[in-house]
Amino acid sequence: MANPVLVEVLRGSLVESAHRGAVCVVDADGVTVLTLGDVAQPVFPRSAVKALQALPLVESGAADRYRLDDEELAIACGSHGGEPKHVAAVERMLARAGLDAAALECGAHRPSHSPSAEALLRAGRAPSALHNNCSGKHAGFLCVARHFGVEHRGYVAPSHPVQQAVKATIEELTRVILGQDQCGIDGCSVPTWAVPLQNLAQAFARFGTGRGLSAARADAAARLRAACARHPFFVAGTGRLATVAMERLRERAFVKGGAEGVFCAALPNQGLGIAFKCDDGAGRAAEAVMAALLIRLMQLEPDARATLERFAQPAISNWKGVEVGRLRPAAAVLPQ
Amino acid sequence: MANPVLVEVLRGSLVESAHRGAVCVVDADGVTVLTLGDVAQPVFPRSAVKALQALPLVESGAADRYRLDDEELAIACGSHGGEPKHVAAVERMLARAGLDAAALECGAHRPSHSPSAEALLRAGRAPSALHNNCSGKHAGFLCVARHFGVEHRGYVAPSHPVQQAVKATIEELTRVILGQDQCGIDGCSVPTWAVPLQNLAQAFARFGTGRGLSAARADAAARLRAACARHPFFVAGTGRLATVAMERLRERAFVKGGAEGVFCAALPNQGLGIAFKCDDGAGRAAEAVMAALLIRLMQLEPDARATLERFAQPAISNWKGVEVGRLRPAAAVLPQ
Repeated sequence: MANPVLVEVLRGSLVESAHRGAVCVVDADGVTVLTLGDVAQPVFPRSAVKALQALPLVESGAADRYRLDDEELAIACGSHGGEPKHVAAVERMLARAGLDAAALECGAHRPSHSPSAEALLRAGRAPSALHNNCSGKHAGFLCVARHFGVEHRGYVAPSHPVQQAVKATIEELTRVILGQDQCGIDGCSVPTWAVPLQNLAQAFARFGTGRGLSAARADAAARLRAACARHPFFVAGTGRLATVAMERLRERAFVKGGAEGVFCAALPNQGLGIAFKCDDGAGRAAEAVMAALLIRLMQLEPDARATLERFAQPAISNWKGVEVGRLRPAAAVLPQ
Repeated sequence: MANPVLVEVLRGSLVESAHRGAVCVVDADGVTVLTLGDVAQPVFPRSAVKALQALPLVESGAADRYRLDDEELAIACGSHGGEPKHVAAVERMLARAGLDAAALECGAHRPSHSPSAEALLRAGRAPSALHNNCSGKHAGFLCVARHFGVEHRGYVAPSHPVQQAVKATIEELTRVILGQDQCGIDGCSVPTWAVPLQNLAQAFARFGTGRGLSAARADAAARLRAACARHPFFVAGTGRLATVAMERLRERAFVKGGAEGVFCAALPNQGLGIAFKCDDGAGRAAEAVMAALLIRLMQLEPDARATLERFAQPAISNWKGVEVGRLRPAAAVLPQ
């Protein structure tokens, strides 16, 4: 049984392409608010769970020991665009733990923020691991390794104490025991664990409310959420949905996407967790669905709603700048 | 009823994402060799029909009048990468018709061939309409306009004599009467006409064999196919499937992709036409399906088969260069 269409891609008045997927919205007690498609199917959450992966950084005391500020906590939860301020924040984090870029094991790639990538090219400089969108998360892992007093080299391996702590945290938040057969290797070389979408949504309801968590973990979650709400630029970057949405919504929404069409969110005031995956992995569909769900689930002021509608129904323009089509969330996602 | 899965995306041993779509393989008499999914659904063929759009260039006598060589005919059928040799070929074509880049109405974008895009950036030069992947097709349209003796400005409009000639050609090849409600605007500003996949496949069977076409049109099709078989670099570019496949297969296969997950092919020796669309528009899936279908339908020497298998089942590597997954055509596409 195929998952339903979540987003249609229109060219003129015809549907040119369509993106299917599954959506789950639950509260911290597991009461379902919305499900579309198969929400029991395990999905790799990829970077959508960076905030959960960052909990040991706070809970262990590493964030306090290395006096990480809110920008640094936010980038530890973020997939940044490699903009100069992002790179500087990661460098600061590493320096606080007595390390530098050479310790990062995420690999290098060009900044996803095009002007930053172009500036690098024009300067004749190669991208480094600092520009990798995951370098903030990795700097966080390195802080934890140093705080644990263990060898930091090899911190990306599933057997390393840092990844063991991350795995235990995700197991506790999702209530899923993670076996080796659910383990994939992420683009940045750390493990990514496949969990059912409904467990992922509930983990974000817990992350957003603290319900069902120890007091220490609830505090750590609140601190990370507050840091991201204060500095959403460090969670994604210029013009990107997670950043723009949190700039508008601040503490009312924690929003984070991952590769292959995954997005998660927590709406603390409403006690809700959101997780969905576009079956085909399309990022364009994932942004539209996330924006549509925020519009659907939240009571938004007109400005915030207008901002999110630009992500929910983005225009498609041709190379002359003429609008030739548009993405349109399905009625199942955003009732007309 | 959803179309079947054509390609799975594996991370480790788990399916992370999947691409659905419809596939049609027919001969020139309309006898079906393979259908998967809904092949009666109209799809925008986008750049996959550039060779059909180039038929008036040859049939009208414009190609002879302006003495276009085979590289130029190939690039008129191509979606090039903006590599220096591509740009030079388009400039030559325009000069033959007494025009230059200023006449192109396709809009500008960066070369899709990354090293060429980077070289441009490093040189501090902005991309021009010559770098647009469609500039060869547009140069062909301009040659037709000049040959017709009509005003070339506005040649992208559906009502312009060039687009009327292109539309009539596509109607005759697909046996579909194209109404305004099937018209979309392509990325390069010309009309793209939605036609059922099965008609598109049959059009390519006709294009590949000449069966059911006038002698003049059959000759024009053979001339374009021969030009592309001799110069596949001008149909796409370095390392791309259409180019690599035709370098291996030469006159045995004409292969051309389009945006939003469409691919078409003609296998003249076997009398077959192929058309498919990935529902979600994914290019990664389209390349894998096209390569898989060539492997399935053709008797390939081991070298050619090995080359195409790299496109049918490409590895997914992380930023450290470690293989973490792979695309895998579904058994319905490529029986194991």
